[in-house]
Amino acid sequence: MWHSNRLMKALGIRYPIIQAGMAGGVTTPELVAAVSNAGGLGTIGAGYLNLEQTRASIRKVKQLTNKPFAVNLFTPETPEVVEKDVAQANEWLRPFREALHISEIPEVKEEHAIIFEQQIQVLIEEEVPVCSFTFGIPDADLLQQLKVEDILVIGTATTVAEAKANEDSGMDMVVMQGSEAGGHRGTFLGRFEEAMIGTMALIPQAADQVTIPLIAAGGIADGRGVLASLILGAQAAQIGTAFLTCAESGANDLHKQAVLNSREDQSMLTSSFSGKPARGIQNDFMIKMKKYEPDFPPYPIQNTLTKSIRRLAGQQQRTEWMSLWSGQNPRTCQGQSAKDLLDDMIRQIEHMAS
Amino acid sequence: MWHSNRLMKALGIRYPIIQAGMAGGVTTPELVAAVSNAGGLGTIGAGYLNLEQTRASIRKVKQLTNKPFAVNLFTPETPEVVEKDVAQANEWLRPFREALHISEIPEVKEEHAIIFEQQIQVLIEEEVPVCSFTFGIPDADLLQQLKVEDILVIGTATTVAEAKANEDSGMDMVVMQGSEAGGHRGTFLGRFEEAMIGTMALIPQAADQVTIPLIAAGGIADGRGVLASLILGAQAAQIGTAFLTCAESGANDLHKQAVLNSREDQSMLTSSFSGKPARGIQNDFMIKMKKYEPDFPPYPIQNTLTKSIRRLAGQQQRTEWMSLWSGQNPRTCQGQSAKDLLDDMIRQIEHMAS
Repeated sequence: MWHSNRLMKALGIRYPIIQAGMAGGVTTPELVAAVSNAGGLGTIGAGYLNLEQTRASIRKVKQLTNKPFAVNLFTPETPEVVEKDVAQANEWLRPFREALHISEIPEVKEEHAIIFEQQIQVLIEEEVPVCSFTFGIPDADLLQQLKVEDILVIGTATTVAEAKANEDSGMDMVVMQGSEAGGHRGTFLGRFEEAMIGTMALIPQAADQVTIPLIAAGGIADGRGVLASLILGAQAAQIGTAFLTCAESGANDLHKQAVLNSREDQSMLTSSFSGKPARGIQNDFMIKMKKYEPDFPPYPIQNTLTKSIRRLAGQQQRTEWMSLWSGQNPRTCQGQSAKDLLDDMIRQIEHMAS
Repeated sequence: MWHSNRLMKALGIRYPIIQAGMAGGVTTPELVAAVSNAGGLGTIGAGYLNLEQTRASIRKVKQLTNKPFAVNLFTPETPEVVEKDVAQANEWLRPFREALHISEIPEVKEEHAIIFEQQIQVLIEEEVPVCSFTFGIPDADLLQQLKVEDILVIGTATTVAEAKANEDSGMDMVVMQGSEAGGHRGTFLGRFEEAMIGTMALIPQAADQVTIPLIAAGGIADGRGVLASLILGAQAAQIGTAFLTCAESGANDLHKQAVLNSREDQSMLTSSFSGKPARGIQNDFMIKMKKYEPDFPPYPIQNTLTKSIRRLAGQQQRTEWMSLWSGQNPRTCQGQSAKDLLDDMIRQIEHMAS
């Protein structure tokens, strides 16, 4: 049932397991290469990387593996900067900055899609085999540039309508992100509250409506989840939180420990860290800022405003103000090495399927 | 993988499929018996039935099948009636009553657990083989009365902690209700917002923590979902919405059609109909009453207040004010007969498992 499907053949991977392209330094070249070397598809989370970092990460991964890997990019959003709203947000964030001794208020500039377009050129130059996108579908000409270079393109969807939009755009595959998933919601059509569909319900409904291969994401952390995803109609599973806790992951150790010590009912959605809804372990920052959520500037402006707070909180071991992204499956995460995690999953699948 | 597990042996059923005990007239004796006759476990949703109705339903089911079936009861809640809050709720509900020509304002009485205790006596007298509970764990002496009569008892949980509480109480099995599920949330410990765990994440985490058999619920409507549930660690799947749309179901035809014509992103949680959060297809009543949700009287008081609105809306074909309970999987529902639905699921499972 799980041997060699269309997606695995296209990606050239041995196992139908994809490590999610978590941004913010989680996906070290060591993590990405470990996953690819173990037979899955590692992914560089390049959403917040500049061009030099993107290129350096790709080159380092290529030194560590000759297997396929992916780079994940954030389809750009360029909201208008409203100075009054930024000033208001800074006022709400002031107590955290003061407590962390942050004297500098971040400068907010208009975002430009140009970095994203240049990242795509880097991927082409570096002959990256797979490029995945979160937060929407890039312009057709950009997608076309990748496709003519035989770079496989993977989109992200949280509803059946978004899956169809990805298929219509020419995406080769699409990640179906269920409501259990940690980190940012990939919703780009409609209201995100209505796009909180559990993976169990999302996969079969999408499988019946689109023909490109689906990748199940959200709530999957072991072989049981991978095999269940295949049965529901996906051709692979994408796993984030479990890889975040791995030894090779670049996540702050406090973040890893917070996940490993948390329960399934402790993560909640918040848009206070970035201006876009994301699932993380509930903490003081999320609780205190909840009432301002509707009035914070949109992503990525709010993300820029909270960047130093998140970083300094990590350095000063104040987990209560860090963005502790996590899915709803922390109890299933073990914190082993990426190779052990992948090997364990495969053993579990082979045992169940035998 | 799915043949004859501990749960199936204990329940005496051929297939690991349980029809959810949906209340409000959905679970006709014909539906319950059709499911049991086809090899699953039918369930009478007796949550809102009085003693005579409970007994009559059981006797009718027994006439239609000699196979095992279950009765689902609502563990009672007896909140204090605060007249001021009831008056306020009636004021907010007035526009709907006027539009539906409802002149009578329902009388709200203090709820008493005595009906529930008498229902249990009926189950014992009628030698019902299985009794399931929603909204919490009954007093130990009541559970004991069922257990000494060899009636299997099944609890409902929405978190691992609730699963453990059910196990500790002596429940023989527990339904794990994922966030995809239609109708009322079974949460009874902690805050329901934090107990919205997707089925994909909930089942493995509970399976690792409790030893009694688990029944997966939420987002399951076909053989793919049933088999995935077993792989995740459940020993059976409970299915609600798909059976609600069946020919034998007592749901209003408008309700069935609304489900069959809806999308995965159209159901939302509301507590405006009953005072307790429940998932249904979003409509005018839910949208208009949303802002009053925190101030409506608790379940079951609010349920009593909206009863005539819901009933008359159904009679007058005004779906915009009906409670259109639905899970997040309406696209997978087909509206066939219960036997065909069950047969289709088994065929699908056997095809996948072969």
